Amino acid sequence: VTKKLLVLPGDGIGPEVMNEVARIVAWMGRKRGVAFDISEDLVGGASLAVHGVPIRDEVITAAKAADAVLFGSVGDPKWASVGFDLRPEVAILKLRQELGLFANLRPAKLFDALAEASTLKPEVVAGLDIMIVRESVGGIYFGTPRGIETLPDGSKRGINTEIYTTSEIERVARVAFDLARQRGNRVCSVEKCNVMESGLLWKEVVTALHARDYADVELTHMLADNCAMQLVRNPRQFDVIVTGNLFGDLLSDLASMLTGSLGMLPSATLGAVDEEGRRPALYEPIHGSAPDIAGKGIANPLAQILSFAMLLRYSFAMEAEAALIEQAVANVLASGLRTADIMSPGMAQVGTTVMGEAVVRELDKL
Amino acid sequence: VTKKLLVLPGDGIGPEVMNEVARIVAWMGRKRGVAFDISEDLVGGASLAVHGVPIRDEVITAAKAADAVLFGSVGDPKWASVGFDLRPEVAILKLRQELGLFANLRPAKLFDALAEASTLKPEVVAGLDIMIVRESVGGIYFGTPRGIETLPDGSKRGINTEIYTTSEIERVARVAFDLARQRGNRVCSVEKCNVMESGLLWKEVVTALHARDYADVELTHMLADNCAMQLVRNPRQFDVIVTGNLFGDLLSDLASMLTGSLGMLPSATLGAVDEEGRRPALYEPIHGSAPDIAGKGIANPLAQILSFAMLLRYSFAMEAEAALIEQAVANVLASGLRTADIMSPGMAQVGTTVMGEAVVRELDKL
Ligand SMILES: CC(C)[C@H](C(=O)O)[C@@H](O)C(=O)O
Ligand SMILES: CC(C)[C@H](C(=O)O)[C@@H](O)C(=O)O
Repeated sequence: VTKKLLVLPGDGIGPEVMNEVARIVAWMGRKRGVAFDISEDLVGGASLAVHGVPIRDEVITAAKAADAVLFGSVGDPKWASVGFDLRPEVAILKLRQELGLFANLRPAKLFDALAEASTLKPEVVAGLDIMIVRESVGGIYFGTPRGIETLPDGSKRGINTEIYTTSEIERVARVAFDLARQRGNRVCSVEKCNVMESGLLWKEVVTALHARDYADVELTHMLADNCAMQLVRNPRQFDVIVTGNLFGDLLSDLASMLTGSLGMLPSATLGAVDEEGRRPALYEPIHGSAPDIAGKGIANPLAQILSFAMLLRYSFAMEAEAALIEQAVANVLASGLRTADIMSPGMAQVGTTVMGEAVVRELDKL
Repeated sequence: VTKKLLVLPGDGIGPEVMNEVARIVAWMGRKRGVAFDISEDLVGGASLAVHGVPIRDEVITAAKAADAVLFGSVGDPKWASVGFDLRPEVAILKLRQELGLFANLRPAKLFDALAEASTLKPEVVAGLDIMIVRESVGGIYFGTPRGIETLPDGSKRGINTEIYTTSEIERVARVAFDLARQRGNRVCSVEKCNVMESGLLWKEVVTALHARDYADVELTHMLADNCAMQLVRNPRQFDVIVTGNLFGDLLSDLASMLTGSLGMLPSATLGAVDEEGRRPALYEPIHGSAPDIAGKGIANPLAQILSFAMLLRYSFAMEAEAALIEQAVANVLASGLRTADIMSPGMAQVGTTVMGEAVVRELDKL
């Protein structure tokens, strides 16, 4: 059986870093005999430019038919005035929603070789390894009513709605508890239950599910504002964090920046396993499209490459191959190569392509 | 004219740290001939215990009649099951809303003497001085519909609504622009306009107001997730940040933790100036009720004392007296006294009372 992969490079540095994944894919075919059936398409601003929409229905259809989607990043200031429904970001939001990708796994892991890149003191972040599980198809991102209304006096009113149901909360909490069992066995559930009823329900549902099915896992609760503080004060107190879409957006970006190497971090977004045992999944770097450095050949391709490793592990159970890629990346870093975002004194600064080639060279040695 | 002050110590460490403000008030009477007409009342869990509600209507009335409110903190796990409408936090939320306190000013300023308390590297935070202006009577905190519904199948649905209108956005943005003119002249407006229409309106309104009345101030825009990252990556890029209620809650806690001295930071929440030139205002520390250390006599009273200094400055134009208090606090720190939260090697650890007394002693010397 061939592995059907849909590749969506997107905007900004997306296509550049995706090019480097192509080298890894080629290596896998050459050296490990793994064949992928790969198709590629446009999303985001890149799709807008050609098709007038941020994502076409046939891309959604192709994503549903694929075994896994490898996504770059979307967002481009060029399209700032294209209108809310046509903005590049719709591409990733629609993919999450249409494929039912409800669990966004965002690791914030410190790479030992890059410990000095963190703005936090080494003794605060050494060994940091947090997994944030963010709900990704609900909450204020998708709730209705939403929109901008014009009032009789000509002024306006912007509205968004946060909604969470018992089942939406349960399914993502299950993912968090299951992951915790394979890690530090601790889950911290984060909401704002002292202000929001949706947060209160979140806390109640997680508490009940824990008592019912996961009493062996340690569960704590934290308010979102406190969590933002605690991530700065003492990030190593966390193992798995589970939270809603909006808090997860902020807290996972914050957590990954603690490692000082945002350009290094991959993510997975998973849906539910269907009757045939298939599980929709999308893999993308945590970083965005970085329009300021796009086209300069200096972007760090490692997060995109590590996203591909995650894809091999979670979607195709190719643990050995995933581990090979991760080891190759570790070896490249150990050899002193650095892209600009993770550069430090005494290291050798290289561009996107040289970094990608170096990973392949290290793979050859393994 | 006497200055009418309403003092609301609240829960946890609130009453303990407020006791130390009483010393400062006494000193002001003794040495500067400043008389305050002070009344005190219960709020939060303390009010629940006696009156069965987190805040009584007569406390709201007294707050409206006062020239300024000095608030401690509310929140107490003891009342976790009291029901959403009776939770201690309702006290501060109601005060903000009923008094129309729409602009929550939250400075994140590094105290030179405490530079080593930050978990961030000194070169990243030295001289940090950010002012976050958080909208505090709108957004998802107060929007309706809200609540928890039970669905036909017995499962539940939690709902909250984020609403922002043109005028709500304009008035808080004005506060931010006006403050910026007295500082670094830069405002960064933070929303999530790539996902939320309320954020899109926010950005449009701030942009239009800027062009109309504040073109001399530098304005930038940032997505909330990026802001959370940038606060960790390079916090000194910010001067004034203006944002909505929920983002402001997280980002201001995060920003203040960057200084390593959350227990040191005061805040002001201001309303609109009325026809008689009066402006409702409430002052409170950024830290919460800290139930884990309540009653132990170890809480840091300096944020509460500095909140009183802010009160003197903003509500009574007593700049000299405010500056005296701030200088006394700086001198106490320079003398090496530290409460547990800001303790570091070589310093002298003291409790709440000794710290309060030390501030008065330094005031005597000034
Ligand atoms: C691009 C944007 C819509 C997206 C989000 O807010 O979810 C991004 O910030 C992310 O976190 O994946
Ligand atoms: C106590 C709570 C309701 C409050 C808030 O969320 O506004 C607090 O966190 C704050 O920031 O002042």
